[in-house]
Amino acid sequence: MITGNHERESNDRREPDNLPEEGRKRVVIENVTPVVDSGRFPIKRVVGEAVRVEADVFSDGHDEVTALLLYRHEGEFQWHKYPMQFLGNDRWQGTFPVEELGSIWYTVEGYLDHFATWIKDLQKKHQAGQDIAADLLIGIELITDTARRAKGTDALHLEKLADSLAEAADEIHEKKKKKSEELAELMAIHYDPILADVYPFELEVMVERPLALFSSWYEIFPRSCCPEHGSHGTFAECQKLLPEISRMGFDVIYFPPIHPIGRTRRKGKNNSTVAEAEDPGSPWAIGAEEGGHMAVHPALGTLEDFRSFVAKAAEYSLEVALDIAFQCSPDHPYIKEHPEWFRWRPDGTVQFAENPPKKYEDIVPFDFECEHWSSLWMELRRVVSFWIEQGVTIFRVDNPHTKPFAFWEYLIREIRHDHPEVIFLAEAFTRPKVMYRLAKAGFSQSYTYFTWRNTRRELEQYLSELCRPPVREFFRPNFWPNTPDILPEFLQYSGHPGFAIRLILAATLSASYGIYGPPFELFVKEALPAKEEYVDSEKYQIHRWDWHNPRHLRDLIACINAIRRNNPALQTTRNLHFCESDNDNIICYLKSDPVSNNHILVAVNLDPFNGQVGNIRVPVEMLDIEEEHPFLVDDLLSGSKNIWHSAWNPVEFDPQNLPARVCLLRSRLRREHNFDYFM
Amino acid sequence: MITGNHERESNDRREPDNLPEEGRKRVVIENVTPVVDSGRFPIKRVVGEAVRVEADVFSDGHDEVTALLLYRHEGEFQWHKYPMQFLGNDRWQGTFPVEELGSIWYTVEGYLDHFATWIKDLQKKHQAGQDIAADLLIGIELITDTARRAKGTDALHLEKLADSLAEAADEIHEKKKKKSEELAELMAIHYDPILADVYPFELEVMVERPLALFSSWYEIFPRSCCPEHGSHGTFAECQKLLPEISRMGFDVIYFPPIHPIGRTRRKGKNNSTVAEAEDPGSPWAIGAEEGGHMAVHPALGTLEDFRSFVAKAAEYSLEVALDIAFQCSPDHPYIKEHPEWFRWRPDGTVQFAENPPKKYEDIVPFDFECEHWSSLWMELRRVVSFWIEQGVTIFRVDNPHTKPFAFWEYLIREIRHDHPEVIFLAEAFTRPKVMYRLAKAGFSQSYTYFTWRNTRRELEQYLSELCRPPVREFFRPNFWPNTPDILPEFLQYSGHPGFAIRLILAATLSASYGIYGPPFELFVKEALPAKEEYVDSEKYQIHRWDWHNPRHLRDLIACINAIRRNNPALQTTRNLHFCESDNDNIICYLKSDPVSNNHILVAVNLDPFNGQVGNIRVPVEMLDIEEEHPFLVDDLLSGSKNIWHSAWNPVEFDPQNLPARVCLLRSRLRREHNFDYFM
Repeated sequence: MITGNHERESNDRREPDNLPEEGRKRVVIENVTPVVDSGRFPIKRVVGEAVRVEADVFSDGHDEVTALLLYRHEGEFQWHKYPMQFLGNDRWQGTFPVEELGSIWYTVEGYLDHFATWIKDLQKKHQAGQDIAADLLIGIELITDTARRAKGTDALHLEKLADSLAEAADEIHEKKKKKSEELAELMAIHYDPILADVYPFELEVMVERPLALFSSWYEIFPRSCCPEHGSHGTFAECQKLLPEISRMGFDVIYFPPIHPIGRTRRKGKNNSTVAEAEDPGSPWAIGAEEGGHMAVHPALGTLEDFRSFVAKAAEYSLEVALDIAFQCSPDHPYIKEHPEWFRWRPDGTVQFAENPPKKYEDIVPFDFECEHWSSLWMELRRVVSFWIEQGVTIFRVDNPHTKPFAFWEYLIREIRHDHPEVIFLAEAFTRPKVMYRLAKAGFSQSYTYFTWRNTRRELEQYLSELCRPPVREFFRPNFWPNTPDILPEFLQYSGHPGFAIRLILAATLSASYGIYGPPFELFVKEALPAKEEYVDSEKYQIHRWDWHNPRHLRDLIACINAIRRNNPALQTTRNLHFCESDNDNIICYLKSDPVSNNHILVAVNLDPFNGQVGNIRVPVEMLDIEEEHPFLVDDLLSGSKNIWHSAWNPVEFDPQNLPARVCLLRSRLRREHNFDYFM
Repeated sequence: MITGNHERESNDRREPDNLPEEGRKRVVIENVTPVVDSGRFPIKRVVGEAVRVEADVFSDGHDEVTALLLYRHEGEFQWHKYPMQFLGNDRWQGTFPVEELGSIWYTVEGYLDHFATWIKDLQKKHQAGQDIAADLLIGIELITDTARRAKGTDALHLEKLADSLAEAADEIHEKKKKKSEELAELMAIHYDPILADVYPFELEVMVERPLALFSSWYEIFPRSCCPEHGSHGTFAECQKLLPEISRMGFDVIYFPPIHPIGRTRRKGKNNSTVAEAEDPGSPWAIGAEEGGHMAVHPALGTLEDFRSFVAKAAEYSLEVALDIAFQCSPDHPYIKEHPEWFRWRPDGTVQFAENPPKKYEDIVPFDFECEHWSSLWMELRRVVSFWIEQGVTIFRVDNPHTKPFAFWEYLIREIRHDHPEVIFLAEAFTRPKVMYRLAKAGFSQSYTYFTWRNTRRELEQYLSELCRPPVREFFRPNFWPNTPDILPEFLQYSGHPGFAIRLILAATLSASYGIYGPPFELFVKEALPAKEEYVDSEKYQIHRWDWHNPRHLRDLIACINAIRRNNPALQTTRNLHFCESDNDNIICYLKSDPVSNNHILVAVNLDPFNGQVGNIRVPVEMLDIEEEHPFLVDDLLSGSKNIWHSAWNPVEFDPQNLPARVCLLRSRLRREHNFDYFM
């Protein structure tokens, strides 16, 4: 017996004696890649990328088979069909382009190619000087059978070709002759469907816009954008920072929640449970009588102000990302209006968030196991739609791992159905399989463990995991050196070099990265004792950052972001290749874009305290550089240029200068690479 | 959209707004193993083995989940359900026994275990000295809800327990107390199905008898069992060899085809196209006017004689394996009676077998693409059933890779449905993926490339491939040092030591092995020039083997087979572990059976010409032997015994003696190993 999920296999039971419906399908199609959980989840691509499909296609016996790649956009009903190339060992390969947002479906078809078999055998017999009279008649039969299927002009044409086969045979011999090509073509078009079979799974590509893959995020608290101390920032004030943020080369500006903040059990400075009168509270404690998830905090301005901020940002080619935190403060209107969406304690109070023995009494979670889950789901979908109407198309989702996976799968599918341009970033620092499942559920990008990977081995291991199939097919990393929740230990003690190291790693290892801006630019490193929490965290109080402080990282950031923009090799993550280095303090990697022939070699000194010297190896074999063939190494950070003559080369870092080289490799590199991982 | 093959996933669309049918199912079940092609094909086990199932089971948030292993024999309607053990990193494991022939189905269920979560949280709060009054009430609610589902005495019991929860709480605390155990048990039995979900695939185990895994084959041409030169052997004469074949310790005696042989285009000695009058022809050219696949060659005896041979063999605990070669001689009755099953050439002649430019004019293949394929399939199934009626339950299938995979899947399923004891061995020396697909289609055992793997690296690489999942789950190797078709180059020049080496490797690396008997025992090594074909091959002429020749391998064979019988470690293949050796001419491996605590260490000198000295390492860590703890090494081949005191030990082979050690490791080995690969 075949289990239900394979009903569409050729050998299911519809006839007496348990015979399959059609026993003449001899072709087998197996192991189609790329694939995620045997097709349960889509792979991800952005417009402009391609999908390289491979499959095992073979049959019993010695007959020739032909493999076809089938794909169609969700809007199309007809498959596009293209012959695949044979790779050897019964494996075939084909590639299709990704040109439109939405979903593309793909699968593989194979058929017994009796015409190809006949030609192959004919040639062998011919060469062996055997009599091929009978074989020619067999060929004619093949062609006339095909003519019967073909109909119309093709049919007539095939009949003609059958008649003239006597000569045709010799022509088939020297393949060049036109007639035999025509014949082969027509025979291929009208192959016998009885001898063909299709892979039982249709696989999906979730197609997003390029920003889903390549993006640079800048996080800032709008309420801190205030002219003088003690006041509350506004969208209008924040607008004044757009030129500088844009100069740094970011394309996404991300706001923590901008909604009214609850007063009940409001948190004070440094997360204290008692708030002073002037404490603004945590933006993640959403909801007050001024409104909930669809309202704007009055002190920030009006919804109108927000919309004009979005418009203004667009002028600086910056998109605004909003925070989605599906949770409530005790004062959220939902709690009165929709008590059925929450869990109530026996004492009649609403159940606040807790992870015993810890209590988060300023936060009330939704009860996703409530009987009215469906109205809850639809309301939360309405929240997202509301902000899309205000011009927001990027959402950073807070703690997605505390809501059901099925909910996210529903929400993202539904939103993408009407707005395939919308991008979702999953903020989940949790167990690996939970993070991966969220990505499978449809999140465009995900936070990662990069924040805590510092040594060469840690980085190489983690990145290798992310670049390996199937992970690379559904999980797009977004690297954050810091966030309002995390001031990593490394940044606490590594000084200015440490900030540069983490910035350059994030921006060159991953196609997407982000920083929690002002404190990062200004090297803020004061943490609560034995914690990775900022002292006087902006989560609980307003900060007025000194944008005129001369000691900042903004110029390096601008430089790195410009390099990212100008070099396609840095605009994808899966093309990462680690290079040999004889000093474990020096990590080295190559990123290549074969299409534009763009090759970036990065070497970083991971030691923030000392200079380091070592030798790194350029994988010349991947770049088709013949050994001893000199090539130009252009350090885009420092501007220094070198000519290298062989694979191994020395690098030196001194503490006074930049802890990294980001080098463009210029040479007469051939264009025909074969970077499998690129597709 | 979810593709068709996943319809049973929890999130398919049946309601308005594309909501799933039930949104409260928060548990996720992924990556269930073992599995072959996501459940398209069964895994294989024999009665007495076990299946160790693993799965990723987790949920959003911090709630506890429980994972259940579900399995049922095809004859059962109810699932057996057992809790799985948590392995860490969201992975769970459970094992079920394999006790009955047929099919067993298995899958995994998971549910949100709110009671376990509640206990965990309660304990933490209790320890933190927090007030748990409200939490106790919540617990009571949990229990009374469960009581509502439970009904009957369980319900009453649960209500009682709810009432007494105040005390119970403390008892839950020190888990020992009976009441709280009862409570936990009842809560587990009556978990809430709304919060549970089942993996969408039901996976199958194809259960066979132990001989499908562990067997020793002896191939012999009955027509060569003749008293004097020039005569034709008979079943009766062959019967006289049973005592000696049984003394050698084989359990399967395999006959090449025993049917009438065609005369038209009969092959002569050494495959010559002209046969002398007295040439008997190839047994694989099946069919003459005396009959076809369901007839016995008159010279061998009657069908009655064959049946009595089968019965006699059974007395010597030998089973007879017949050859299934689905092809015809030009004289086969089928060709006249069923012309619709063959391909006809334009000149009106039937299409003989060919692989251009090679022609096999004495063989006519069936046309599996003929319109009447279904009557052909049913007839071939009838052939197999016929021989089962004659007492045959093992079939060696000739060239299965030249017939459709779907046909084999059909044939084997149908035969196994009525006769699950039947074993099929696939004789296919072809492309790897074709061989694997045949195994997936249901063949119990398969020929392999072992015949051409001679060096340490070749053997280690190939065996590692066979022992790796998923291959080890569906592909059971049967190692043949020689066959009537293949006298490997190695045996042609390596002398007597070469035969011993290949015998010992085959018999100790693989749980199943076989030899083409007489020529192997007698060290026959004469091949056609530059070929791996025997000179005067028995395929085309009758051989009278000298069973009294004093120079033979039979005693070593008997010794090896006895060792195989007495040591469970040698009765499975997947438990193979290669050991370190500082001499590449010496291969070393350990096979362990944790259940019987049986551990066999094999070291073989792969150099047939010279003695070799080296050091091998016993993987003491796998055997829980503490370093420096001495253990007895008992060479079952030579009878010599040694005490070894550490992992690394010297071995020496001299050309005069056996080229191998097959050692039983005796020591105070602990019984709790964890040989994952064993299940």
